[in-house]
This record gives sequence, structure tokens and C-alpha cells, in this order.
Amino acid sequence: MPDPSSLALPHVAALHAYTPGLQPTDPGWVKLNTNECPYPPSPRVAEAIRRELGDGAVLRLYPNPRSAPLRDTVAMHHGLAEENVCIGNGSDDILTMLVRAYCSDSAPLGFTLPSYSLYPVLVEIQNGRAEAIELDRSMRLPVERIHASSAAAFVLTSPNAPTGVGFTNAELERALAGFRGLFVVDEAYAAFAREHAVPLLARHRNLVVVRTLSKAYALAGIRVGYALADAAVIDVLDRVRDSYNVSRLSQVAARAAIEDDAYFRSLVARVVATRDAFVADLTDRRRWFTYESQSNFVFTEPVDGRGETGPSVARSAYEHLYANKVLVRYFPSHPLTASFLRITVGTDSEMAVLREQLDAWQSA
Amino acid sequence: MPDPSSLALPHVAALHAYTPGLQPTDPGWVKLNTNECPYPPSPRVAEAIRRELGDGAVLRLYPNPRSAPLRDTVAMHHGLAEENVCIGNGSDDILTMLVRAYCSDSAPLGFTLPSYSLYPVLVEIQNGRAEAIELDRSMRLPVERIHASSAAAFVLTSPNAPTGVGFTNAELERALAGFRGLFVVDEAYAAFAREHAVPLLARHRNLVVVRTLSKAYALAGIRVGYALADAAVIDVLDRVRDSYNVSRLSQVAARAAIEDDAYFRSLVARVVATRDAFVADLTDRRRWFTYESQSNFVFTEPVDGRGETGPSVARSAYEHLYANKVLVRYFPSHPLTASFLRITVGTDSEMAVLREQLDAWQSA
Repeated sequence: MPDPSSLALPHVAALHAYTPGLQPTDPGWVKLNTNECPYPPSPRVAEAIRRELGDGAVLRLYPNPRSAPLRDTVAMHHGLAEENVCIGNGSDDILTMLVRAYCSDSAPLGFTLPSYSLYPVLVEIQNGRAEAIELDRSMRLPVERIHASSAAAFVLTSPNAPTGVGFTNAELERALAGFRGLFVVDEAYAAFAREHAVPLLARHRNLVVVRTLSKAYALAGIRVGYALADAAVIDVLDRVRDSYNVSRLSQVAARAAIEDDAYFRSLVARVVATRDAFVADLTDRRRWFTYESQSNFVFTEPVDGRGETGPSVARSAYEHLYANKVLVRYFPSHPLTASFLRITVGTDSEMAVLREQLDAWQSA
Repeated sequence: MPDPSSLALPHVAALHAYTPGLQPTDPGWVKLNTNECPYPPSPRVAEAIRRELGDGAVLRLYPNPRSAPLRDTVAMHHGLAEENVCIGNGSDDILTMLVRAYCSDSAPLGFTLPSYSLYPVLVEIQNGRAEAIELDRSMRLPVERIHASSAAAFVLTSPNAPTGVGFTNAELERALAGFRGLFVVDEAYAAFAREHAVPLLARHRNLVVVRTLSKAYALAGIRVGYALADAAVIDVLDRVRDSYNVSRLSQVAARAAIEDDAYFRSLVARVVATRDAFVADLTDRRRWFTYESQSNFVFTEPVDGRGETGPSVARSAYEHLYANKVLVRYFPSHPLTASFLRITVGTDSEMAVLREQLDAWQSA
């Protein structure tokens, strides 16, 4: 009888799967590790889901295959047309479509290191070629190296992850000016930034802006993201998209959230206020090197009680927090990230618990 | 400025996207075209969704990335272990994972013609090689040609679509006996059949059984399907699976539906009773050639008022029904299907409307 282990394609058998952040199921954790929003979504979301659900009978029917009403809502929200929008089962689904349509062994996908660690995994699944561009400690955009790259498509996390550093539209335009491939700006965290790239779409037909409802809309649980781009790019994504990729309830939930713009703005403002107070604590009181965050998380270099920094110090802080049921993220595999912690902005009371634990760790 | 049309991979720019059945948004249609269940899902589904949803706050958190509780439920339902189950965003997501992990330009995917028309599209997206095995009008399983094929993986719709013809486990075992690759049995319609392939998993490590909740569980709107297989195959699927591919609400909805087995059995029994009465009308009263259906749809060859059959006759019947707001499916692109209509089994009153319209068409 055939051993199934030998049947998978060699590149799949060899690949390193993406590691999502821990999702503990036991209670009591202060969960600051996966950049979820600490506040609930708009109350209109639950209302819209209950209205669509009714007695449940509607669930027997397939959803709108194109998520057409949601495309309309997204298009209106951004002042674009429906033909400029594609809806994904989370923005990871959009990123998968982009890699499947634009990346191969002869069409490399470019990205910076560090950035969202899913990109190289998607390239591996595709058996494509990756072209990583290393950042330096400044974390600024290496415009010349993007221009010099052979990437057929380039994807930039902006603001970047796990650093939180924002890029300006002026920088993006300089990068776009000398890049002939598809330029993807993954704006998962753009709601928390000073600028976003949507206005650039009118001038750059090779630009794709990717958004998610998982962070600023507090809807990680429903799995909705989208791409904004030229109609020719959207047409390509639809060719590789799964026909019914977004459930009925997720479609109505996303529409309700986007339509409640006042609530969305208040959510973002609360997170930004807590973030800025936390950054002040880190930089002014603790004197820890911390990148300027334009996202809903903070990337900081812990200093221990002896005044030291480095990978083992960051690990020690991570482990102290973990032992005290405070979950943050730690990326030991890259020299630019190994001395840092990435801490999601929680509620003010969650951040108070975190600060106490950081105090305890420092004085240990 | 780069023209984005020229940037997509050539095989993607050239591919023919899958065409899902029409999903009309205006009221008044008798919708017998996409094999949805005519009855609502178990009332426990809406209860479970409302319980998970609460005031909506839980939606801010990511779902369980592995859908682990749902894997447990599915495993228990089939008497398997959690390691033998992978959950998809619909069974189309499972099929995509299988093609990505087992099919390439040097590892062909085999399938019969006719069968589910998504398979060749998934191969095209993958830029892989397809090996189609033509059925004859008997629609029986061509065991010798499967043995002789060079397919690295073979996927069989069982019961088949759009014919509704069921294959026996004895036939499947004969096919498995001489096939060394991955053997996938796509059991979207197995709930309506006399046999299913799950018992064969214990003896065939290269067997994968794919199921969906869209048909017999009346849950097309939530997008959940699953694969049952050897743990080594499930491990491979998880490597190419999107990390958070199933929403929170879909996970709890699927669990509730599977746990209400009595309701499920009653749903299937009602559909089967209506199907068998409809088949009797077609074969005994109208004398239309109709394949024995083991699914929730019927594949029949219409005979017009002049006693004729053929592609133009089937088209005429389709168009008459469409003009009278009865939606069925018609597959003109293959000689074995072009003279037929595929009609989903609806409620008894929907089938009465259909029969009246067929009478009107025949006497026109």
C-alpha cells in the first residue's frame, strides 16, 4: 500500500509552515501577541449578523460568490468603483491570490526583512522564488534596492511589522517611480498611521493596497480582508480566487463595520492614545529603544536590571511575561528583531498589568 | 506607468475561471441549480451561532487556527482521530489544498469527464498537468484506465456530478488496488448515496475522503468542508492551508450541525423521498432517460413534444424553465452532458412547479 508521505510535491514536503501567534484557550491571559483590537467591534456588526441569520434558514443558500454588496460598500468607503475591489477570506487570502497570480520560479516575489513573515511561506507553497531585501536598523525604505531588484512583484508591509514603522507616501512614490512590477502595499495597520497609500492608486496602475478588518475593525474572528487595485489586477485576482470564499455572515458583518465609520474612528483613537502613553513609558521612563509606532503594536528593546540588551535579555523578558500570563511576541530568528519584543496595544488596564510585570522583571 | 495586464503569470492571464451557478438576488425564482438543500439547517445551528456571537465582542479575536474543536467533532462523528481531519473554507478550499500539495506540471491530476468542473480550473491555476479520463454513456468507473493513467493524484466525484451516479466501495477498492498515487474521493453528495468510502480509509493510506456541509447539512452559506485521511496527508494539507481559514461563527455552526445527527438524517430522508418520486415521474410518466441518482439532484434527458432529444432540445427545456423563473443547470460543453438537464431536488411544492413547467414545455 502506498505510503502517503512520499506522494506530496517535494517543495511542499520540505516547507516550513507559517507559525501563527499562540491562541490560548484557557482563561486569565493578558493577550498582547496577535495585534487584535482590545475593544469590541461596532454593535451594528452583531445586529447585522443576527438580522442575516434570522432562524438560520438562509444559511442553506450559497453566499454571493463575488461578495458583490461588500465590494460596493468598500468601493464607496474609499471613493473607488466596485471593479477596483476584491474581497478575501482575511487579507491572507488576498496575499495568497497575489502570490498565485504574480509569483513563480521565474517571477520572484520581493519583500523586506523583517516584514510580515507569511510572505516567504506563501512563496514556498507556490514553489516560487523569493527576493528578500534586508533592512538596516534605521528600518527606512531601501528605495534604491527595490529599484535594483529583479522582483516581478514586491510586497511592503506599511506600516511595517513587527517594527510598527510607517512609510510616507513620498517614499512609496519614490519606490514606485523606479519599479516596473506589481507593487503591493499591505496596509493591515494603516488605520493607525498618519498616511495611507489609497490616494496613490489613481496615479499607479501597478499598485495594490491590501486591507484587513482583523485589526482596526476588531473583526479578526470573521476573516475578511480586501484588495484595492486597477480593474485589470482585480480581474486577475478573481481568476485565482475561490468561487465562494466569504461566508454570508462575514459579508454582512464586514459591511456593517465599514458603514459605522464614527465607531471605527473612536476605536482607532482609543488605541492610538494608549499606544502613545505606553511608548512614553518605554522611552521616557525606562529609556528603552523603541521604534516610532504607527500601528497598534509597539516594538521595543528591553533593558534588564543590569542595563543590558540583546537576544537573551529579550528572551528573559518574554519568558517572565509568559510565566505571569502576559503573552507578547518575540522574533529570535532575525538579528534586527532578536533583541526586541512586539507588544500589541491592549486596554489601559491590560497595559497597567504589563507595565507592572515589566517593572518586576527589571528589578529581578 | 506599467500596464498591470501584462504583469500576471501567463497561465493565469490565459485561464478560464470556474463559473458558479447563478445566484439570483431578485425574488420569485424556483432555484434548482446549485444543489442547495431546500430545507433549513438544524435549529441548533442558529442557536450555536447566537451563543458564540453574544454581543459581538468575541469577534475581535482570531478563530482557532486549526479549527481544533471542529476537527474533534468531525473525528468523533466518523470514528477517526483528530489527526485524520483537516477543515476547509468549504470543500473547494480542501480541493485547492490537495491540488497545491500533490499536482504540478510533472505530477498530473487525474479526473473523469464529466465530473465536478472545478478540478481542471484548479489544475490551470496551479499551472499543473491534467489527465482527463473520458467516461462513456454507462457512466461506470473506468477502473483499467485509472490504473493505466500517469496521474500522481486522482480525484473522483462520488456520487458523480452532474450525473448523480454512485460508485460502490467494491468498485473503489478495485480502482485503489492498482493505483499508486493519492486517491481522492470527493463525497459532496455521499449523504444521499447507499455507500460511502470512509470505511476504506482504514485499509488505504493513500485515500482521501472530502466532504462538505453545503449540501446535506443545508449550510452552503457558512463555507465548511473537510478532508479525512491518513495523518501524513493531513499534515501536508496543513502546510499549504491558510492559517485562519475558517471563521469563528462557521466553526461553531458546523459543530452544531454535525452533532444533531437525527435532524441530519431526517433532512436526507426528505430529500431522497422527493428525489425518488421525481425520478419516477421522469422515467415512468415521461419516459425520459434518467440516470439513477444517489445524490440530491437528477440528471435527465428531456424529450420534447415531437419525441426528440439532443442538445437543442435540452437547451429549449432550459430556456423555457428559465423564462418561467425555474432555474436548473445545463452543461452544453461535453457530448455526454449536452442533451441533459441537472435538476436539484427542491421541496415538494417546488417540484410541482417544475413538473407543471415541464408539462407546458412538452405540450408547446
